[in-house]
Amino acid sequence: MLKVNEYFDGGVKSISFENKGPLSIGVMEVGEYTFGTAAPERMKVIKGELTVKLPGHIEWETFGAGDDFEIPGESSFQVKVEQTTAYLCEYL
Amino acid sequence: MLKVNEYFDGGVKSISFENKGPLSIGVMEVGEYTFGTAAPERMKVIKGELTVKLPGHIEWETFGAGDDFEIPGESSFQVKVEQTTAYLCEYL
Repeated sequence: MLKVNEYFDGGVKSISFENKGPLSIGVMEVGEYTFGTAAPERMKVIKGELTVKLPGHIEWETFGAGDDFEIPGESSFQVKVEQTTAYLCEYL
Repeated sequence: MLKVNEYFDGGVKSISFENKGPLSIGVMEVGEYTFGTAAPERMKVIKGELTVKLPGHIEWETFGAGDDFEIPGESSFQVKVEQTTAYLCEYL
């Protein structure tokens, strides 16, 4: 059964699924969010753009459609979303 | 507000959003489905694989991650899903 997840009062929604490991696809509305990680993750932007501050990084980096970035486990990352953005998250 | 859609008793779920036009991202569980279209659509496979019979086509064609295909409006297409698959749909 496909599980739908909702975060930040519905500003972020995702669908969890399995395909050679756990993944989710989701959409982030315009806003600023901080996500915590348990397992390490690889995030890929599908449509739109994410400006991200990764743990231990000083600079904010912007990732567009097709770009991906990794986040260590047991950490957190900040995201600024200036256009509604779709993403794929792989739990590594 | 991000709208979650559910089809075929939850076998397909999607999230509708807007970014320079209407889109949705979704996940299809293993199975066979027939989708109708109102507007023309462009479907892109994000993770997994879809085997598709497009309107007017005799052959079934398989599309993997990164591949896309277009479906005319006011028509329908058949899909065979052999692994849980994530997709992006753009309404043209």
